[in-house]
Amino acid sequence: MPHKIILDCDPGHDDAVALLLAHGSPEIDLLAVTTVVGNQTLEKVTRNALAIARVANITGIPFAAGCDRPLVRTIENAPDIHGDSGMDGPELPEPTLELDSRHAVDLIIDTVMAHEPNTVTIVPTAGLTNIAMAVRKEPRIAERVKEVVLMGGGYHVGNWSAVAEFNIKIDPEAAHIVFNEKWPLTMVGLDLTHQALATDEVAKRIAAVGTKPARFVGELLDFFGEAYKDAQGFDFPPVHDPCAVAYVIDPSVMTTRRVPLDVELTGTLTLGMTVADFRAPAPDDCNTSVAVDLDHQKFWDLVVDALQRIGEVDL
Amino acid sequence: MPHKIILDCDPGHDDAVALLLAHGSPEIDLLAVTTVVGNQTLEKVTRNALAIARVANITGIPFAAGCDRPLVRTIENAPDIHGDSGMDGPELPEPTLELDSRHAVDLIIDTVMAHEPNTVTIVPTAGLTNIAMAVRKEPRIAERVKEVVLMGGGYHVGNWSAVAEFNIKIDPEAAHIVFNEKWPLTMVGLDLTHQALATDEVAKRIAAVGTKPARFVGELLDFFGEAYKDAQGFDFPPVHDPCAVAYVIDPSVMTTRRVPLDVELTGTLTLGMTVADFRAPAPDDCNTSVAVDLDHQKFWDLVVDALQRIGEVDL
Amino acid sequence: MPHKIILDCDPGHDDAVALLLAHGSPEIDLLAVTTVVGNQTLEKVTRNALAIARVANITGIPFAAGCDRPLVRTIENAPDIHGDSGMDGPELPEPTLELDSRHAVDLIIDTVMAHEPNTVTIVPTAGLTNIAMAVRKEPRIAERVKEVVLMGGGYHVGNWSAVAEFNIKIDPEAAHIVFNEKWPLTMVGLDLTHQALATDEVAKRIAAVGTKPARFVGELLDFFGEAYKDAQGFDFPPVHDPCAVAYVIDPSVMTTRRVPLDVELTGTLTLGMTVADFRAPAPDDCNTSVAVDLDHQKFWDLVVDALQRIGEVDL
Amino acid sequence: MPHKIILDCDPGHDDAVALLLAHGSPEIDLLAVTTVVGNQTLEKVTRNALAIARVANITGIPFAAGCDRPLVRTIENAPDIHGDSGMDGPELPEPTLELDSRHAVDLIIDTVMAHEPNTVTIVPTAGLTNIAMAVRKEPRIAERVKEVVLMGGGYHVGNWSAVAEFNIKIDPEAAHIVFNEKWPLTMVGLDLTHQALATDEVAKRIAAVGTKPARFVGELLDFFGEAYKDAQGFDFPPVHDPCAVAYVIDPSVMTTRRVPLDVELTGTLTLGMTVADFRAPAPDDCNTSVAVDLDHQKFWDLVVDALQRIGEVDL
Repeated sequence: MPHKIILDCDPGHDDAVALLLAHGSPEIDLLAVTTVVGNQTLEKVTRNALAIARVANITGIPFAAGCDRPLVRTIENAPDIHGDSGMDGPELPEPTLELDSRHAVDLIIDTVMAHEPNTVTIVPTAGLTNIAMAVRKEPRIAERVKEVVLMGGGYHVGNWSAVAEFNIKIDPEAAHIVFNEKWPLTMVGLDLTHQALATDEVAKRIAAVGTKPARFVGELLDFFGEAYKDAQGFDFPPVHDPCAVAYVIDPSVMTTRRVPLDVELTGTLTLGMTVADFRAPAPDDCNTSVAVDLDHQKFWDLVVDALQRIGEVDL
Repeated sequence: MPHKIILDCDPGHDDAVALLLAHGSPEIDLLAVTTVVGNQTLEKVTRNALAIARVANITGIPFAAGCDRPLVRTIENAPDIHGDSGMDGPELPEPTLELDSRHAVDLIIDTVMAHEPNTVTIVPTAGLTNIAMAVRKEPRIAERVKEVVLMGGGYHVGNWSAVAEFNIKIDPEAAHIVFNEKWPLTMVGLDLTHQALATDEVAKRIAAVGTKPARFVGELLDFFGEAYKDAQGFDFPPVHDPCAVAYVIDPSVMTTRRVPLDVELTGTLTLGMTVADFRAPAPDDCNTSVAVDLDHQKFWDLVVDALQRIGEVDL
Repeated sequence: MPHKIILDCDPGHDDAVALLLAHGSPEIDLLAVTTVVGNQTLEKVTRNALAIARVANITGIPFAAGCDRPLVRTIENAPDIHGDSGMDGPELPEPTLELDSRHAVDLIIDTVMAHEPNTVTIVPTAGLTNIAMAVRKEPRIAERVKEVVLMGGGYHVGNWSAVAEFNIKIDPEAAHIVFNEKWPLTMVGLDLTHQALATDEVAKRIAAVGTKPARFVGELLDFFGEAYKDAQGFDFPPVHDPCAVAYVIDPSVMTTRRVPLDVELTGTLTLGMTVADFRAPAPDDCNTSVAVDLDHQKFWDLVVDALQRIGEVDL
Repeated sequence: MPHKIILDCDPGHDDAVALLLAHGSPEIDLLAVTTVVGNQTLEKVTRNALAIARVANITGIPFAAGCDRPLVRTIENAPDIHGDSGMDGPELPEPTLELDSRHAVDLIIDTVMAHEPNTVTIVPTAGLTNIAMAVRKEPRIAERVKEVVLMGGGYHVGNWSAVAEFNIKIDPEAAHIVFNEKWPLTMVGLDLTHQALATDEVAKRIAAVGTKPARFVGELLDFFGEAYKDAQGFDFPPVHDPCAVAYVIDPSVMTTRRVPLDVELTGTLTLGMTVADFRAPAPDDCNTSVAVDLDHQKFWDLVVDALQRIGEVDL
């Protein structure tokens, strides 16, 4: 039986790949897509999500817009990585899908509560504002959700400061809320996603799929690669967000380690750091894990396979 | 035309007086009552709110329960001041009113959005979790609300630490959100409310009303007075929450001063302090004020008048 | 018997008045003068201290230079209040006194240890870097010193932020050290010193002394008054530092209140705030007090009297 | 020409090995030994330092005691690792060496200022209180010292919290001072020293030296091994402090990487973390480096060689 997920995202180049991976994988039952301010403004990332839906012909799934700013902090976006639109590179088609009338927070709550306990996985690939708001508004989802598998953080790596990652640092209070709830939580952080490089060989495999959605991904990765080269000196871009989806599809795509995790809220140099305590074996009630090593081949196999299954789409 | 208000509270002895003042005053059009964890658990304060409704025969107004814990921090209640029930002292009648099916956050949003811009005042007399959640979920309320008049904080006085007040300190992140929004905000803090003492003469005036609701208030203040004497050494209890309602009824009941306000989130000694900057005249765009001096006589006149207007109630 | 004091200062207009008050008062036995970075660089304030010595013909007392920067923070000076020299206004004579070869920290330690226990009062009127270094280098002075009477801080007033005062905020870690030692400590803060205004009448009394040192003070206060008017909107300048000396001369010049005090080190809005806890009677082991109300007449009588006793000086 | 060093330590089992390595190595000219509160009280670690001097017959070098508590924080010791004496295990001989009359801070300053610029390396293997005090008292040493090579911190490893190491966390303000000075600084942190395990083979090599000092080291490592097994689950004890000395003797004993370093002072979870920013090549003016990989064989060769050179000692 496929894994039911809610994808909470801020597309975003790698969010787009995550969404296509979720849509194209037979192992995933995509229940809802929600958006939140992050890589760009809420308006832009929401428009981008709908544009991806059109590119991949995703229908019959509710898309809802969520929070337009972090809980406490002022808005930080990442135009140096994602461009002015939040998804620069390919031409973005005009969306045809209509947004669900509900707020993302309510769509998340309704979706979790409408399904059997322990069946819905939340996959955030953005700041955690929506998820934090949802669990504060409806605390019962903390026990009902099967798992939270999120892209964000890093136990030894930062990109938005020396030791903090963008998704966590832009709304550290929301992250603190999400990391301290009782649901099982797997953090797919930079330690892992910096292994998910879209190498030349990866680009060739994606190009070889030959469809419009694959071409769309190719153009996204071209822009993303240039941006990462310029902004952070990477030879190839780390394609963060689909790693979280890949873990839901097949946990063997990466190794994980159970370890207590928390989010730093008052540090001057460390604000938004995801602090992992590796000093001792995790206590029995530890419900948090971190992703450690990626099977690069298997990961990209999943992405290419999903693109092949999506097939050609009329735009 | 009476002032439309939403009362967000955590009854709470003084919340009860605030609710009765709002209900009994012809100057107030009470649109909704929402509850939030604070003086006691959400379950208890919600039950207390409904009990007050029965005591004063409040009907036709939606009551809704809100957040059961602060945004980031763990729950702190105040049983030393409010007892185990959150409203110890009088016998609490079994509620007859049913709660609105909506979450308090949605009731607040719906109520504000259903009325004309600039007509609804939010009066929080508790931690600001609900209000913060509401404005993050529906940012448009920040411009639509007429004013926020809240009981909480203190520019020179603390009660939950040397310099922080209970309502702010139990959810400082929520307070930070509310204090930094663009709505006009008046902080009726401890500087003011420590002047609102229920002296013996006040108690006599309330007793003289002679109704069951007045007797209920009398019993509340008896307990409150003992608790404040034991816990904080007061001769007479400061009846905080109705001060905020009184200000909406008649701003001349207190003096206020426009001053920039913010909430400290990282201080070791000062967490949750409401920091007012009195060093210079407030800048033109300053939208925050603090209450300074209370007209004690006028304030209690309003309360006694409201009790008289409520009249006798069959219990 | 006169009170033995060490004056640790950063002249500074009001430091100059403090030094002259100490020198001219028969109630004070000035043992040593030490300087520390603050109102201006260490080099400038040290030169200023020696210039004052020449103006008032202070001889036979060791002057030593101390720390040239705060413990942890980077240097902040106050040229908007004290000018480029740190003591703008009067012409500063070329110093003739030679500095003691010791570091201020060692001069403080040596002086305290050379006198009987409980006989030496330290009077800091600057950042507390020297004093903190001294007590960490020689912990025994904490028990040997009679008292620390410092100008700095404020329980309800700030001038270097909304709630922090300059002397404390420029080296909050040093202040934290000094405030948490076991010596009796009286904080003469802005709450008090903003009452020590050099009004027109005060200026006239000082002018009437008619000596060169008095003229020097008059010129200092002229500049200081203009600076305070421009920078902080005062009608008359608050002459902070001599208040601490005045309290040593005659405690009845002000009221004080015993209250627990501490210094905030991690606050975002409150860094360097001197937090006083007025909620309950001070515990028996409380060794800190704050100055509350100044006897304006008596204070300026002390200053004028000291200037008269200093008399005329050949420059 | 041997490297002139000042060893600032808190013996401490591994401090003892560091001192013996420095004493026995022909590449080191040990100018002074200073002690500071840390693994145990100042009194105990100072006594231990003198006991080591007797064990190894170290004479003609000044030993001085320094600060008995951290700058701002209260004292934390590590009896679980070092026992009640701070150096439990071997019998400690009665010291015969007399302490220098100077405070460690002054001995450090005097020693640095008495030698040619750029010739003296400071090797702290304890909390950095003394070093911070020295550079604040005499700022010129920051430019005169050749290098600071310290044992402490960790860029990816903590032992006194999830991400902070003991020597840094017990006096984070002092560490902040030392890490932000302009001297070249090499941090030999837990990342490196957890590689310096005293394995069974190491123990055998030390035993094979066959002298009383070697037996003393053997007994130290026996206790240390048990303590580390019990307290932190290590199979063999990491012998931290001599790594810093070894680096001065022969930098090829480890790899290092130049990287900006700073110390977190306000973090709730991260207080005292040494934050390294590996995101980009170090800027040209970066004067801090971290130790990365140890040559385990070469390191222990140095220690064993030093013990052999020390030879037999009459106790």
